[in-house]
Amino acid sequence: MKHYLAHHPWQIIEEDFHREHHEVSESIYSLGNGRFGLRGNFEEEFTGKTLRGSYFAGVYYPDLTRVGWWKNGYPEYFAKVLNAVNWIGVNIFIDGESLDLEKMQVSNFRRILDMQLGLLTRTFDMHPPSGGLLSFRFERFCSMDDPDTAAIQISIKSNGYHGKITLEPYLDFDVYNKDSNYGDQFWERVTEEQDDTFSMVSAITKKTQFTVSSFMQTNVVVNKHEIKIASSDVSPMKVSRLYKIDIKNNEEIILEKTVVNLSSLYVHPDHQSDEGRKKLEENVVTGYAALKHNHRKAWQRIWEYADIAIEGNVMAQQGIRFNIFQLWQTYTGADARLNIGPKGFTGEKYGGSTYWDTEAYCIPFYLGTADSHIARNLLVYRYLHLPKAIENAAKLGFKDGAALYPMVTINGEECHNEWEITFEEIHRNGAMVYAIYDYIRYTGDTEYLLEGGLEVIIGIARFWSQRVNFSHDKQAWVMLGVTGPNEYENNVNNNFYTNYIARWCMEYAVEQIAWIKKEHVDAWTKIKEATDFDENELAQWTERTTNMYLPRDESRNVYLQQDGFLDKDLMSADQLPAEDRPINQKWSWDRILRSCFIKQADVLQGLYFFEDHFDEETLRRHFDFYEPMTVHESSLSPCVHAILASRLGKTEKANEMYLRTSRLDLDDYNNDTEDGLHITSMAGTWMSVVRGFAGTQVKDGQLCVAPVLPAGWEGFAFKMHYRGRIIGISVGKDNCEANLLAGEPIEILVYNERRQL
Amino acid sequence: MKHYLAHHPWQIIEEDFHREHHEVSESIYSLGNGRFGLRGNFEEEFTGKTLRGSYFAGVYYPDLTRVGWWKNGYPEYFAKVLNAVNWIGVNIFIDGESLDLEKMQVSNFRRILDMQLGLLTRTFDMHPPSGGLLSFRFERFCSMDDPDTAAIQISIKSNGYHGKITLEPYLDFDVYNKDSNYGDQFWERVTEEQDDTFSMVSAITKKTQFTVSSFMQTNVVVNKHEIKIASSDVSPMKVSRLYKIDIKNNEEIILEKTVVNLSSLYVHPDHQSDEGRKKLEENVVTGYAALKHNHRKAWQRIWEYADIAIEGNVMAQQGIRFNIFQLWQTYTGADARLNIGPKGFTGEKYGGSTYWDTEAYCIPFYLGTADSHIARNLLVYRYLHLPKAIENAAKLGFKDGAALYPMVTINGEECHNEWEITFEEIHRNGAMVYAIYDYIRYTGDTEYLLEGGLEVIIGIARFWSQRVNFSHDKQAWVMLGVTGPNEYENNVNNNFYTNYIARWCMEYAVEQIAWIKKEHVDAWTKIKEATDFDENELAQWTERTTNMYLPRDESRNVYLQQDGFLDKDLMSADQLPAEDRPINQKWSWDRILRSCFIKQADVLQGLYFFEDHFDEETLRRHFDFYEPMTVHESSLSPCVHAILASRLGKTEKANEMYLRTSRLDLDDYNNDTEDGLHITSMAGTWMSVVRGFAGTQVKDGQLCVAPVLPAGWEGFAFKMHYRGRIIGISVGKDNCEANLLAGEPIEILVYNERRQL
Repeated sequence: MKHYLAHHPWQIIEEDFHREHHEVSESIYSLGNGRFGLRGNFEEEFTGKTLRGSYFAGVYYPDLTRVGWWKNGYPEYFAKVLNAVNWIGVNIFIDGESLDLEKMQVSNFRRILDMQLGLLTRTFDMHPPSGGLLSFRFERFCSMDDPDTAAIQISIKSNGYHGKITLEPYLDFDVYNKDSNYGDQFWERVTEEQDDTFSMVSAITKKTQFTVSSFMQTNVVVNKHEIKIASSDVSPMKVSRLYKIDIKNNEEIILEKTVVNLSSLYVHPDHQSDEGRKKLEENVVTGYAALKHNHRKAWQRIWEYADIAIEGNVMAQQGIRFNIFQLWQTYTGADARLNIGPKGFTGEKYGGSTYWDTEAYCIPFYLGTADSHIARNLLVYRYLHLPKAIENAAKLGFKDGAALYPMVTINGEECHNEWEITFEEIHRNGAMVYAIYDYIRYTGDTEYLLEGGLEVIIGIARFWSQRVNFSHDKQAWVMLGVTGPNEYENNVNNNFYTNYIARWCMEYAVEQIAWIKKEHVDAWTKIKEATDFDENELAQWTERTTNMYLPRDESRNVYLQQDGFLDKDLMSADQLPAEDRPINQKWSWDRILRSCFIKQADVLQGLYFFEDHFDEETLRRHFDFYEPMTVHESSLSPCVHAILASRLGKTEKANEMYLRTSRLDLDDYNNDTEDGLHITSMAGTWMSVVRGFAGTQVKDGQLCVAPVLPAGWEGFAFKMHYRGRIIGISVGKDNCEANLLAGEPIEILVYNERRQL
Repeated sequence: MKHYLAHHPWQIIEEDFHREHHEVSESIYSLGNGRFGLRGNFEEEFTGKTLRGSYFAGVYYPDLTRVGWWKNGYPEYFAKVLNAVNWIGVNIFIDGESLDLEKMQVSNFRRILDMQLGLLTRTFDMHPPSGGLLSFRFERFCSMDDPDTAAIQISIKSNGYHGKITLEPYLDFDVYNKDSNYGDQFWERVTEEQDDTFSMVSAITKKTQFTVSSFMQTNVVVNKHEIKIASSDVSPMKVSRLYKIDIKNNEEIILEKTVVNLSSLYVHPDHQSDEGRKKLEENVVTGYAALKHNHRKAWQRIWEYADIAIEGNVMAQQGIRFNIFQLWQTYTGADARLNIGPKGFTGEKYGGSTYWDTEAYCIPFYLGTADSHIARNLLVYRYLHLPKAIENAAKLGFKDGAALYPMVTINGEECHNEWEITFEEIHRNGAMVYAIYDYIRYTGDTEYLLEGGLEVIIGIARFWSQRVNFSHDKQAWVMLGVTGPNEYENNVNNNFYTNYIARWCMEYAVEQIAWIKKEHVDAWTKIKEATDFDENELAQWTERTTNMYLPRDESRNVYLQQDGFLDKDLMSADQLPAEDRPINQKWSWDRILRSCFIKQADVLQGLYFFEDHFDEETLRRHFDFYEPMTVHESSLSPCVHAILASRLGKTEKANEMYLRTSRLDLDDYNNDTEDGLHITSMAGTWMSVVRGFAGTQVKDGQLCVAPVLPAGWEGFAFKMHYRGRIIGISVGKDNCEANLLAGEPIEILVYNERRQL
């Protein structure tokens, strides 16, 4: 845990430079605009510990996997998010010495991420050895208004200093991934160009052939007089230019660096040079102030609907806004080829881009905070990968169009390293179907089923149907060799969650096919042909769903996480000595696997997903049995527990879990924020409030709200999208207001009472 | 399967050069002498597909492991057997053109490995473009008489050829391991020396600092006239010398290359240069013919007791001798720091040197074919590693002197790559104790218990005692998360074999402690102190052994391989389509794990080990249940099945299994002989005959023999060491003779009849 950042409802503030936490700050002060982003690195040189990181959405490299002994069906490649061009770089020399906060003492250091404006600023004073004082101010943003554009403004003001300052803005593509498996560089040089007003550098990824080009125009004024470039330099993968300035007392240098970043996802490599130059010229005409204004307006439009306002608790307020802000920086929903990586644009760890986090956590967030087309784009992403999911299953021996979505992917191919995950953590396939179901119940839009959704559902139902086998011993259908959401168990038989969601997927497939046959005959004919569907499949699925085995302990009246769970030495996590926590850092994997401890919601994930299948007493029994054994060593765990605890009126537990999820990165709970932010679990924070504290559910097609106010909060308010409407919910100490802000009238349940909005 | 080698009782003969099988031949024609060895590479250049391999016993390199995501308790290093100096090299140029069997057609090619003599010869004729014919003959051996020495003789005879022949003998240390994880070179240059009579090259391993030096002296005569060296060359890691010869019709060139190889296991690096030079001079004085004679005499001494003579079946005869020959080439029992690698000196695959193969397969072989000190050295090897085994267990969280022997090791540290093996395939720990038990029952030597054996047993009993936990559900002690001998199952609960051998180890520990307390009070006092033994441990062990859970199917009256085994789709391997075999090459790992198919004897391994715990009917029930599901995709599997089938009178099955094990490499059953020979499983071939067909067992401390003659054999005979005696067994069509060849009189049972020998 770290507490060096000040609490503020809209800002993340670092007072004084915390060099010892620099890499954590680099993660926290990350910026992005859905198309590219970067860690909060300094513009100027920094020789201390740093992870320079600049990333482009959808640009990846298939690094060779690293396994002991490769076996059939193991993935060959691990698609890596690529560290790309450093486009923020500006070296600064004062009397010939490089400005470097690792080596120089500065005063009045203050860094602010203003989440309302989407603006990162940094100010400090330094005392050059030759006398006087220089005040620095850095400001930058990645435009949410134009996703190709970013801009930086640096101001240096003299207070009694006379001397030479040299500024060297540059673009540098000679970068490596920290997590390269075999130390390879993933980029190859394409070209560098530079003239008096314009610089560019371009590189192409090996194997995948993505081309990224970065362009800059720089402008330096001193007291409103423009400074000419003294010299410029072009070397392989790097371009730079030099400004030499004599500065006197009270003078101010202002450098503006306007940047355009283009990737071949959006602009063909042959046109990047022309396109970048043109766009850069337009941006220069628009000017820094107007670019910033447009950017701020874009953020205003997002916050209008996405914000959650909390009264009476600044920590909680700051936490939720930080989570919402980072999610929107990572994914704006504009492109169905993109998805939400576990670290977004804030680090390289976990490679890949898409886990089941998207379906289980992020889709509910975007469903709630934005127009439905964004969540739909996330569904379409998977539809586009359906052929690869079928290939993926075929590699494992499944046939006839069975689809297994990958555990981690960028392009639809599986790219995790570990067999116990890739082959076995197959419950993710269920989340794909659940997301479609979730989308329909929150938007009312059934059209998606016709336009791809049902094909995905059929592929997945086929997979489950083949993945189970009939046990003559149990006289039921069983599922062997899986890993559930609780990754502290590998290769178990009959994981309750997996069996349950598999059964539900097949049932849902049967229902939706029945519906489409009735309502959309023509669409069904097409889908039938596209999927080469055989009517006998329905009977096969039904045979399995009516006799699917679910492990159960009758004496406790609870479902068991898996076969044999009761053979374990059962104990609660609070019996663990403090020095043993977190167990994934302190214990051997052997010991973890054999223990009863649960990494993240597993049986409880099922009870959360299928909330209307279980009554409160059933939920309580399972919560009381599993919660004490849960160690929450996944960032995805606390939010589900927060929601269930809220449902059960366990407000203290709900609060504890909420803080853990909402301030995970700000307070560095797991001592790993330096690797990047936990982007996908941030959606869980939003869920904790909206589905947890506000108690929103859809039951029998009706929106229900049943808020509980967490201890220490005076109220909270948010807006949510629901079936074409926007509904404002405002919770106070003794009241809950619900207002229809847009759309047709609707009836909802507030604490089980009907309200017409 | 490949059938290009001729059948012969003592020789492996290749007629005509089979270029397409060259790498297979390189494995088969490997030579070794326990201290170093090499694949059957050609002396001269060969530009075709080849795996050049030269290996030194005990010389290894800890390569970084390759895992997806490292977790606590994973091994950091994988100790690799090192490809070392090429000491056989002799380039041969005819009229300036390099002799290269990839590019040149030769006639009358014939290669013979004479196993009786330990000699590899190769002859062929070639027709130089300038006319005439040259007859080549190559001969080499690695001396079994002096393990530092090897020698090569090359003869080139002209039949109508007139021209220039250049010979370039060399030593080359610039070699790489084919299986390096990250492409590193493991050797660093030390020195090269060369003068008119002597060449040497020396290199040191990175990290482990083993120094190996190789020395050569060469002598070339034409018609008994010595040829002078024309020139010589020294470059980093390589020395060579050149002979230029004008040869005429009927002349014969004879090159003798005498080699000394020294490793720092035996000669300190500082003394290697002097020692090598001295030894080389001695060898030169002794002369090629006498060196060869001494080598042959050493093999004669081995064959005297190790041979198995089979009448009426040359294929079977050749197979068993090839296995015995390769085992003795790999390990001669002279050094307790050495052990038997899965590929010996014939390849790099599987790295490491020691698996449980040594205890389960090789120790019985050496017990039977040689004086007991050799098997004892193999036991001492493990005793020397006891501190590392305790460390290894401690890394996983075990305490108080619990010992877990590694799955693969050279220096006592675990160095396998996969958690499902390293943490989980812990049954190997049982084999360590079983080998001590086996050693005592075959030698009668209980002294070893006092001199290390009991400490090993205690460390292992402690491990089992901590590794089980009490299941309140089953009201018994259970063992979770293991991999049994059948590696086609990973992370299962209550593997019968593992639970059974664990229970037996603890029982055996209790018994042996009781015995030593009674018989050797002083020794016990010392062992107690050395192991910090607490008398309460005995009660703990007994508590576990009296209530250890063993999975069982009452209806079939068989023990189950593991919990949940009956949930699988049970079917016999003969229902598999031919194109699906072997499943480890055709199926995904996912499919294999979930199938019922068994890689190698698992429950049956237990019934074999503890043969006197189960009656014949019990054995038959288990054999009939498990054998049909066994795919024998481990080289260790067929021999156990051959033995059990013999016991049950299933001679056809026994024969099938025997051929599979004895000619595994000669006929390349698994299409992998090119990687090297299956050295450790070769001991299984011997076991198939001696413990299988001859039906030798020790029951209640008495040797029993009950031979069955396999179909197509007319008889077989062998000698076996047993409790200080040597007993000759000779089996004919209707008779079984047993003779005491050395030692005190003894009573044995032949077909349950008492015979006094």
